[in-house]
Amino acid sequence: MMRPLLLAAAALLLIAAAPPSPADILASAPAADWADIPATDLLVMDLAGNRRVVIQLAPAFAPTHVANIRTLVADGWFPRHAAIVRAQENYVVQWGDPTAKAPLPAGIAAQPADGYERPGLPPGFRALPFADAYGARIGHAGGWPVASDDGKHWLPHCPTMVGVGRDMPPDTGTGAELYAVIGHGPRHLDRNIALVGRVVQGMDHLSTLPRGTGEIGFYTSAAERVGITAMRFAADLPAAERPAFQLLRTDAASFALWVDARANRRDGFFIRPSGGADICNLLPPLRPAGQARK
Amino acid sequence: MMRPLLLAAAALLLIAAAPPSPADILASAPAADWADIPATDLLVMDLAGNRRVVIQLAPAFAPTHVANIRTLVADGWFPRHAAIVRAQENYVVQWGDPTAKAPLPAGIAAQPADGYERPGLPPGFRALPFADAYGARIGHAGGWPVASDDGKHWLPHCPTMVGVGRDMPPDTGTGAELYAVIGHGPRHLDRNIALVGRVVQGMDHLSTLPRGTGEIGFYTSAAERVGITAMRFAADLPAAERPAFQLLRTDAASFALWVDARANRRDGFFIRPSGGADICNLLPPLRPAGQARK
Repeated sequence: MMRPLLLAAAALLLIAAAPPSPADILASAPAADWADIPATDLLVMDLAGNRRVVIQLAPAFAPTHVANIRTLVADGWFPRHAAIVRAQENYVVQWGDPTAKAPLPAGIAAQPADGYERPGLPPGFRALPFADAYGARIGHAGGWPVASDDGKHWLPHCPTMVGVGRDMPPDTGTGAELYAVIGHGPRHLDRNIALVGRVVQGMDHLSTLPRGTGEIGFYTSAAERVGITAMRFAADLPAAERPAFQLLRTDAASFALWVDARANRRDGFFIRPSGGADICNLLPPLRPAGQARK
Repeated sequence: MMRPLLLAAAALLLIAAAPPSPADILASAPAADWADIPATDLLVMDLAGNRRVVIQLAPAFAPTHVANIRTLVADGWFPRHAAIVRAQENYVVQWGDPTAKAPLPAGIAAQPADGYERPGLPPGFRALPFADAYGARIGHAGGWPVASDDGKHWLPHCPTMVGVGRDMPPDTGTGAELYAVIGHGPRHLDRNIALVGRVVQGMDHLSTLPRGTGEIGFYTSAAERVGITAMRFAADLPAAERPAFQLLRTDAASFALWVDARANRRDGFFIRPSGGADICNLLPPLRPAGQARK
């Protein structure tokens, strides 16, 4: 029984000598502070050229859109009809049906704006003490970044977040047209478009795509579009090929330490901690589920 | 004399009918609201493969580093010794001497931290009424985004901003190692590294580069690095080849209208204006100097 106590004391002494970096805190977080992402929420999008993008869906925040995406995936709709059609610098990469004419499978719900914002605060919401330019109270809940105001809450438009493209009328997004945010978070889209998830692997396959030369970054020829060869849930892949990730639990003690260390960098390089951090620089940390456990 | 007045009245009616978008405001800004960027501040970096990146330097914010960069450019140092050596997802693309051994030309000043922050407020500073997660007062001055606190001011780390790489000791950055921000603004670097400018053309040549697989995105082989074929000031190029840009004057009436329209999108697509905006989503608008003048 002495040994763990001595080790803990030694760790505290080490911390006193050199303040831990955010990476140090993640490396020493106990296994219980990490939670598996359900394989039924991990959408695996394979692009032409052997490029894999994995997206965690957020059914608690956009239930109708996520249900629609499950229907589209079960139907095999994406590889049959969709491609990457748009890459706009410092904004979004978007995929969908370039003809905008492919019929949707049965069961796609008419689109209420229920993914734009949800009532109240989500279970386990922990507010951050930092200001937000968008007038929102920011924090985390259930492994997600959250913004809140006016008695509502929603997912913020940060890099890697995935949203539902729509036409001018707000009830026109189905989930058949999706985009991922690249560049500085376009938070003015918050509450105007539904966010449905977050890219957890392969973000660079999207962010490095050549920018489109058409209006708002649309590709102007079929040759520029990147085909989607498969779109499946991790749960439906053979076990050996299944991507698996863990999220640092946003209600864990390690998470609070990590937020504090991100907002107040005290590791070697930094001469002046900033004392705050933007919600888009505080997306919950991820790791492959196979990583060595403490 | 009647005609222009009638046109103006028609324009006002149009505005009343459909609120102007940020793009509408830029399109109708009078010529006097645009200012030429001096050709002596425009650094033209040509990369292998005919890729041109143009950077506006900010001598008022980082005088020593900008003077060093002028010395390095006059010496022909960059094409002789530097290449793009690092591309880290959602962070920075960096260029410099991969050997870290090439001698610097005479006249490179020892590095005070005078580019990290400057005293007081810059001339013409106009504060924005929006909160900032980093505890800073944000605004604009002289064509630049500005953050301020503790009686100091500095340029914020937003996408396209260019900074001076350094080693652990804070006085080790010369300007021979530079980086451009890609992804969500890493504002925790504010006041910890000197910013010296902003990419005004060719940003996608940097942001789409393959990410490096080494630690913090460094390329691990010479083959991955992108050579710099030329580094010159626009003022030193033949007039016909000279890139030229204008910035919307940050003290112009159009600029205030543009900020308000960015923070409160009232154009067609938007159902809920956000009421605020992040300083990194309010970088002063640019246009090619050759563009049709009003």
